[in-house]
Amino acid sequence: MPNSRIITLLSDFGLSDVYVGVMKGVISSLNPTLTVVDLTHQIPAQNIPAGRFCLMNSYSYFPPGTVHIAVVDPGVGSNRRSVAVEFEGGFLVAPDNGLLSGVLSQSAVKTAVELTNPQYWRTSTPSTTFHGRDIFAPVGAHLASGVPLEELGKIIDPKTLIQLPIGECSQTDQGMTGYVQYVDYFGNLITNIPGADVQGKAWSVVVSDVSIPGCTTYHDQPAGSAIALIGSHGWVEIAVNCGNAQSQLKINWGDKIEIINN
Amino acid sequence: MPNSRIITLLSDFGLSDVYVGVMKGVISSLNPTLTVVDLTHQIPAQNIPAGRFCLMNSYSYFPPGTVHIAVVDPGVGSNRRSVAVEFEGGFLVAPDNGLLSGVLSQSAVKTAVELTNPQYWRTSTPSTTFHGRDIFAPVGAHLASGVPLEELGKIIDPKTLIQLPIGECSQTDQGMTGYVQYVDYFGNLITNIPGADVQGKAWSVVVSDVSIPGCTTYHDQPAGSAIALIGSHGWVEIAVNCGNAQSQLKINWGDKIEIINN
Amino acid sequence: MPNSRIITLLSDFGLSDVYVGVMKGVISSLNPTLTVVDLTHQIPAQNIPAGRFCLMNSYSYFPPGTVHIAVVDPGVGSNRRSVAVEFEGGFLVAPDNGLLSGVLSQSAVKTAVELTNPQYWRTSTPSTTFHGRDIFAPVGAHLASGVPLEELGKIIDPKTLIQLPIGECSQTDQGMTGYVQYVDYFGNLITNIPGADVQGKAWSVVVSDVSIPGCTTYHDQPAGSAIALIGSHGWVEIAVNCGNAQSQLKINWGDKIEIINN
Repeated sequence: MPNSRIITLLSDFGLSDVYVGVMKGVISSLNPTLTVVDLTHQIPAQNIPAGRFCLMNSYSYFPPGTVHIAVVDPGVGSNRRSVAVEFEGGFLVAPDNGLLSGVLSQSAVKTAVELTNPQYWRTSTPSTTFHGRDIFAPVGAHLASGVPLEELGKIIDPKTLIQLPIGECSQTDQGMTGYVQYVDYFGNLITNIPGADVQGKAWSVVVSDVSIPGCTTYHDQPAGSAIALIGSHGWVEIAVNCGNAQSQLKINWGDKIEIINN
Repeated sequence: MPNSRIITLLSDFGLSDVYVGVMKGVISSLNPTLTVVDLTHQIPAQNIPAGRFCLMNSYSYFPPGTVHIAVVDPGVGSNRRSVAVEFEGGFLVAPDNGLLSGVLSQSAVKTAVELTNPQYWRTSTPSTTFHGRDIFAPVGAHLASGVPLEELGKIIDPKTLIQLPIGECSQTDQGMTGYVQYVDYFGNLITNIPGADVQGKAWSVVVSDVSIPGCTTYHDQPAGSAIALIGSHGWVEIAVNCGNAQSQLKINWGDKIEIINN
Repeated sequence: MPNSRIITLLSDFGLSDVYVGVMKGVISSLNPTLTVVDLTHQIPAQNIPAGRFCLMNSYSYFPPGTVHIAVVDPGVGSNRRSVAVEFEGGFLVAPDNGLLSGVLSQSAVKTAVELTNPQYWRTSTPSTTFHGRDIFAPVGAHLASGVPLEELGKIIDPKTLIQLPIGECSQTDQGMTGYVQYVDYFGNLITNIPGADVQGKAWSVVVSDVSIPGCTTYHDQPAGSAIALIGSHGWVEIAVNCGNAQSQLKINWGDKIEIINN
C-alpha cells in the first residue's frame, strides 16, 4: 500500500455553506496529519457528467496513493451503493452513480468494495442526506491512514460499477461530429473529441454555420477572435482569444459541433 | 491545554480579495506548522445570524483543542469588544457581537477573556477596519501554539458575552410555528425547529397554504417534489428532491413556517 | 537560502474548474511536505492590474522565503517571458507581463531569471494554454524545495521586467486627484492615493459633485452613510458604513476621485 497522506475533495456543495469545512473536520479528527486538497466544490448541482469530467482531468496530477473523495450525489439516501476503488493511481471513494467512470475509462481497477462496514463511518446511523460527512470523508481518511480497502466492505465485481459513457463522436465524410461536454470558468467550450484525432492535421470546427480555424495557441488569431485548439486537458476546445466563447458564440453545454478536415 | 494544531476560519470576506489569504499569511508567519481549514468565507456580508448558524453547525466536527476564528464584524473599529473563549471543544476567537452565541448555547464556557493585550496582536496599533488580520488571526495562532488564554487579556464574566438568541418556535394546538433561519447553497430552507421535536411522529409543514409532507429522505417523494425532513445539521429542513426549494417554493430567509402533527 | 515551505497561489482561474487543484497536485507530486496557501483565484479574467494590486497587498504578510506563484496570463502561448525573481521577502514566479510590478515597486530584486530550463518544468513540451500547471507550479515547488534560482534559467537584468505603473495621482491647488484602482468584495472603492498623503490632515473626497468626509473608522458616520478613510492596505478608500459603496454611489473601477484638504 502506498504511504499517501493526500486526500482530494470534489463536490457540488459550493463554498457558501460549511459542508466542505465539516468534511475536513471529520478527516482531521481521524488523522490531523493528512493534507486535504480541494479539486472543486462548484460542480453544477447534481451534475454527475460535469463531476466525472473534472475528476477525470485532475486525478493523474497527484502522487501515487492519493485518495480522491468525490461527492455529487443526487441519490443520497436512496438505495444507490457507496463504493471505494483501488486503481493504479491510488483510491477513489464516491457514490456508485457514474462519477468515477471517467477515471475508470483511463485506468484499470485493482479492487472495488461496497462500503458496508459501518466501523469506518462517522456513525453507524448515518444521516440520510449527507454521506459526504458521515461515510465518504471518514472512509477516505481511514484509507489514507493505511486501512486496507478490503476492510471497508464487501468486494464487488468492478464490472458492476455504474458506467456513464462520454457521448459518442462519429466519423463523417469530412471529419467528425461531437458535442460540448464541459464549459469552463473562462467560457471555453470543451468538446468530447480527443485531441489525438486532429493532432498534426489541418482542421476547423463548424458550429451554427460558422467556421472556426484549428490552431495551436490562443494567439494564433487576434484578440476577440474565435479559435479551436487542443486544450490543456487533451480535448478539442473552442475559445475566444482574451474573451468568452460561451457568451460570444452562444454555444452551450451539449451543443453539437462538427470537425472538418481541411 | 490540548496540543492542537488546527485553526478554522469563518468570515464574510468572500474569496475574490486577498483578505483571507492575508490572515493565513499572518498565521503562518507566527507558526508555519499550523493547519488552517476554511469553514466558509461567504457568510452574507455583515449577517451575524448566518455566521452564528454556520459556526454552530461545524465546530463539533473538529478535534478537541481546535481554535475557531470567526470574523463577521460590522462593528470593527467601534467600541465592541474582541474576545477569546475556551470551551470544552477548544477555543473561539471573535468580535463579541453574538457570533459565538450559537456555539455557546450548546457548550459551556470554561474561561473568557477580552483581547486587551497587544503583545499578541500583529501590531500595537491595529487598523480600524481589519481586525481579522491585526488581532484575531495572530491571537488565534498564538492560542494554537500554546499561549494560555489568560495571557491574551483580562478575564471577563462569560454571562456578559453578547447573546443573539435563535428566534422562538412556539407550540400551537396543532403543532409548532417557527421560521427559516438559513438557506443553503442548494436552496434548502433550514428552519429553527429542532429535529427532535418531530422525530418519530407523523408531521407535515404548512407554508403559504401549501402542505409539505414530513419524510426521512429526499427520495421519499418524486424528483421535483417538495419535502420536509430532519437535515444533516439536526434542524427541520424544507427541500425539493433534485431541485431548489428557495426558488421553487418562493420561501426565503425569515419566512414563517408551521408544523402540523398529522 | 531561506528554508521556506510555503507557496502562495494567485490567479484568475476561478474555483469552479479543477485548474487550481491540478496545480496543487503538481506541487504535491514534487514535494508533498509543502504548504500551499491560496491568495485568491478570482482576479477578474485577464485583469493584470487587479492581480498586481492583490499580490502587492498580500506578499508582505508571509514568512521570509515564501514562494509566490501568480498566474494572470492572457499572453500564455505567445512569446511573453516566464520569470522567477528573488527579492528580500522571498520568491516570485509569474509571466513577465507587469503582474509583479506592484511588489517590485516596494521591494528590491536580488536576482531575476527567465524560465528557460525545462528540467524544472512538468514536461519539456508544455501545453500552449496552461503554463500554471506545466511551468509555474513545478518551478515554484522546486524553488520552495531548495533549488537555487540560477538553476531555473538564464539570468536577466531586473530592469527589463515589464513595468505596469499604478496610474498617477496629481497634486492640485486644493489637494489631489486620483482614481479607483480596485473594488473589493464589499464594494469598497480603493483609490491609488497613498494613505500617507492624507494622514493627520483634515480632508474629504469629492466624486460626482458629492463630498464624502475623511474619517478614521467606518463608524464615524451612521450606518448607510458614505465615508472615506485609509484602508487596511494603506490606500485611501471610499466605503459605506454597513453598506456597499460601489452600488450605492455608482462609482466603479477607474473612476476619477478628488481629495480636498479642508
